Amino acid sequence: MAAPVVEGDPLVVGVDFGTLSGRAVVVRVADGAELASAVHEYRHGVCTDALPTGERLPADWALQVPSDYLEVLRTAVPKALAESGRSPRDVIGIGTDFTACTVLPVRADGTPLCETPEFARRPHAYVKLWKHHAAQPYADRINEVARDRREPWLARYGGRISSEWEFAKGLQLLIEDPEIYAAADLWVEAADWIVWRLSGRYVRNACTAGYKGQYQDGRYPSQDFLAALDERFADFVAAKLAGPVAALGEAVGRLTEEAAGWTGLPAGIPVAVGNVDAHVTAAAAHALAPGQMVAIMGTSTCHVMNYDRLVEIPGICGVVRDGIVRGMWGYEAGQSGVGDIFGWFVEHGVPPSYHAAAAARGVDLHGYLSSLAARQRVGEHGLVALDWHSGNRSVLVDHELSGAVLGLTLTTRPEDVYRAYVEATAFGTRLIMETFAAHGLPVTQLTVAGGLVKNPFVMQVYADVLAMPLSVLDSACGPALGAAIHAAVAAGAYPDVPAAAARMARVRRDVYRPNGANVAAYHDLYERYRLLHDYLGRERPDVLHGLHRRRAEILEIRSAGDAS
Amino acid sequence: MAAPVVEGDPLVVGVDFGTLSGRAVVVRVADGAELASAVHEYRHGVCTDALPTGERLPADWALQVPSDYLEVLRTAVPKALAESGRSPRDVIGIGTDFTACTVLPVRADGTPLCETPEFARRPHAYVKLWKHHAAQPYADRINEVARDRREPWLARYGGRISSEWEFAKGLQLLIEDPEIYAAADLWVEAADWIVWRLSGRYVRNACTAGYKGQYQDGRYPSQDFLAALDERFADFVAAKLAGPVAALGEAVGRLTEEAAGWTGLPAGIPVAVGNVDAHVTAAAAHALAPGQMVAIMGTSTCHVMNYDRLVEIPGICGVVRDGIVRGMWGYEAGQSGVGDIFGWFVEHGVPPSYHAAAAARGVDLHGYLSSLAARQRVGEHGLVALDWHSGNRSVLVDHELSGAVLGLTLTTRPEDVYRAYVEATAFGTRLIMETFAAHGLPVTQLTVAGGLVKNPFVMQVYADVLAMPLSVLDSACGPALGAAIHAAVAAGAYPDVPAAAARMARVRRDVYRPNGANVAAYHDLYERYRLLHDYLGRERPDVLHGLHRRRAEILEIRSAGDAS
Repeated sequence: MAAPVVEGDPLVVGVDFGTLSGRAVVVRVADGAELASAVHEYRHGVCTDALPTGERLPADWALQVPSDYLEVLRTAVPKALAESGRSPRDVIGIGTDFTACTVLPVRADGTPLCETPEFARRPHAYVKLWKHHAAQPYADRINEVARDRREPWLARYGGRISSEWEFAKGLQLLIEDPEIYAAADLWVEAADWIVWRLSGRYVRNACTAGYKGQYQDGRYPSQDFLAALDERFADFVAAKLAGPVAALGEAVGRLTEEAAGWTGLPAGIPVAVGNVDAHVTAAAAHALAPGQMVAIMGTSTCHVMNYDRLVEIPGICGVVRDGIVRGMWGYEAGQSGVGDIFGWFVEHGVPPSYHAAAAARGVDLHGYLSSLAARQRVGEHGLVALDWHSGNRSVLVDHELSGAVLGLTLTTRPEDVYRAYVEATAFGTRLIMETFAAHGLPVTQLTVAGGLVKNPFVMQVYADVLAMPLSVLDSACGPALGAAIHAAVAAGAYPDVPAAAARMARVRRDVYRPNGANVAAYHDLYERYRLLHDYLGRERPDVLHGLHRRRAEILEIRSAGDAS
Repeated sequence: MAAPVVEGDPLVVGVDFGTLSGRAVVVRVADGAELASAVHEYRHGVCTDALPTGERLPADWALQVPSDYLEVLRTAVPKALAESGRSPRDVIGIGTDFTACTVLPVRADGTPLCETPEFARRPHAYVKLWKHHAAQPYADRINEVARDRREPWLARYGGRISSEWEFAKGLQLLIEDPEIYAAADLWVEAADWIVWRLSGRYVRNACTAGYKGQYQDGRYPSQDFLAALDERFADFVAAKLAGPVAALGEAVGRLTEEAAGWTGLPAGIPVAVGNVDAHVTAAAAHALAPGQMVAIMGTSTCHVMNYDRLVEIPGICGVVRDGIVRGMWGYEAGQSGVGDIFGWFVEHGVPPSYHAAAAARGVDLHGYLSSLAARQRVGEHGLVALDWHSGNRSVLVDHELSGAVLGLTLTTRPEDVYRAYVEATAFGTRLIMETFAAHGLPVTQLTVAGGLVKNPFVMQVYADVLAMPLSVLDSACGPALGAAIHAAVAAGAYPDVPAAAARMARVRRDVYRPNGANVAAYHDLYERYRLLHDYLGRERPDVLHGLHRRRAEILEIRSAGDAS
């Protein structure tokens, strides 16, 4: 492995912009050691019920306030730097990563429309967070027209684009608030907006352009296609997505004086091209070679994996050339709900005696339920669950599905259901991996990152269900480390991201190994999951769709009633 | 309506032997007024884990101790009588009803084998309670052989007999403890055993003989059939079920001196033929005419209805000539789990904040969840549940099925699930009623009895789902009242049960009326229930069966491990 090509003991800063907070980490270029990190929670969090100005929001909305991101630069970066005990002058570059698709309308100078007095009370002027799901009808429309027109890019997204992405959210903006649409000079990923704030240069990163903007083979969807959606949408790409697309790990430009003032970093250091939290984690885990999958398991799970060839796989959320690392086809899959299902269950489905027992043992409910569930044999609970509480991303790409538990009896206890949910998410991962393999892209190594790596019970279930050992990212701030690795490349300390990752990544290999008896027992349980998956997800999706729509209809009526 | 044919203001006593306790009621013959009642809880309750002598029991066992029943005669009857303020000399008859099929092995003189020193530590010597479900493999065997041999009686039981019944439990006894089987001179319904204790005469009642003993058209299943099950079982009917079968409402004999001593009642008063809790309730509700259904809704639900003609309906649990009232074909259907599902959910699936809120309002959790759920519009929760936590009796007759909830999201709250379970049980009732109607036996009137009538939310859901008004039994001890009505007939106070019921029954008509908008909305939700019912219950029962079997297998291994 190449040693870094700079003198002394240089540092880089990585900043990870998550759903609720931003985290900065100070990393040594030579070996990836994380010297210090700091977190700053967004002042406004996620706006789901109302704008900061009080205006009510409909169901399924999720907005953010862009000034919250700048506060992370002003607070977390100087704090991490101070805690590192090192001089800011040792920092040779800064890199960032962001949730995606998180997107906002801005003026030509980058000013968010929600910061202009005339639009501050208009929901559509704000950042639409990745989990804003109110653009579903527009995604449906886009998919329908794309299918009818046999748009060539559609197959790159598993045959269906998501309501979370740039075009669906953009079309929602046009239809629902055309005035804001007209006033927006650009429709910008927050990942690129923050880099613009740091460097003064607006460049679109190859990752979000590809995965969230359908940028394929050097172009976005055509003007003809856009016009078929809506005449007024014809110039969406030309007008609102204008701007160069840059490769990951490149330097966009240099830190401005203003951003140097915010961060306490030296002006003029390279700023890396924007990037996405899940995708930079592959670098942090040094899992960039073909077949090396990284699963980032938190509230939801994102799977990223490179291969040297293109295969269009139904239900895999995206394949993008150079989307994870330059020179490879980057594949992305995902599970909409994982840790949030466990969290929801623990909050709403566990009786007082369990709360008391957990408290008496000094553990949280996840720990307590996990310890009870871990004692069971595979299948002892008699349950099988579907992990679709937030819909299904891969491989069904259907946000109108919902979760289920089957096999309940009067002897079913909370730890049984908890275990069934853990298993269901593991089955969901297995189904994704089998789908890759069935298309000639086997997963040869799996590294897990994200908050759930802290739960050994969950990890062991995954090892047993997937029948393969799990490696674990050995960092409390994997994405920020990944961003820092990209900063090191942007700063010229390494020739490319794989070379930097080889030195700077932090991973513990094969920490969890499958238990042979459990592996065999899970084959059978997985077959039941798969059968229900196919019946309720493919043959008769109308059952769950109908439940979803009836509920949405009533809530809309209620919400309209509340507003009046 | 005919006035009673006795002088003065005579009384009758009804005694209801339930699952956990016995209740005696003192009733005025003239108008059915309940003057007093008293309850006595069984000292040994239900033995599911161990015998009173300490021997461990396998999974799915449920036993009782017959001396507990006699204690009810000794305590509850005198207590109720004392509280009535009337003289025992005014009592002109006694009637009883029992859970069924609840069955025990006895000596020729009626002594239960569990009361003999040599067998007191043998599980098979005890009373097998109706919900003893460990005879399932034997029921499977009986059904298989009966189907192969095209036994004519099988169609009277919906095509499948239950593991709860006399033959399945008897075959289990033979196979698992042939010594006890050999020692048993008779295999007796507890309903008949208690009447034997009261009157000194052993007579089998037409209700259990028909519904639980496959006594049809004057005969039990043939010796050939029994031999086909097991050579040693060939004389089961001739030897173990010997005894005359008597019509409901007849007098078996007269109260013995010994029983008069227990109860404080006059020796020599008529003792009515034994009967079953659900079936006597039809008399208490004055619902004996064709098309008048009574649903007894408690932990489980039993549906009874008379018709003047025989139709063999798949999945209806039994049709017996004279089985409810003489001269009619009595139909019985059932739902294995109803109130016990609500109780299980409340105990194991509701978080501390709900317990606190209920306590603050001074209501129990059922009341609190019902009040929250009652505010919702139909379908607002987005859920559909399957009420199979204890298997499905009608119309699938399958105890290896299990429950389910579908449509879960991160916004699902306990009141949503509670409501979905209430609805699922109502859908189950609707499916049973539709099955009757599809075979030419429409339900024209529905009267509800049992513990759940106290929950107006549950009742309104049923009215809306079933699209018909609900009448309600106006008695806190419906079965005991029904037993008392039969006592009045046995005593000669009325010419027959319908005549007695016309004067003595207690019912409030059309208490809950369907709401038109809800009825329409439930049509749609019911269709989804029905689809899942048919898929998981009929097309692919293997999914839930497999879960059940795997669990049973592991528990058996565990239990074997514990025992060793």
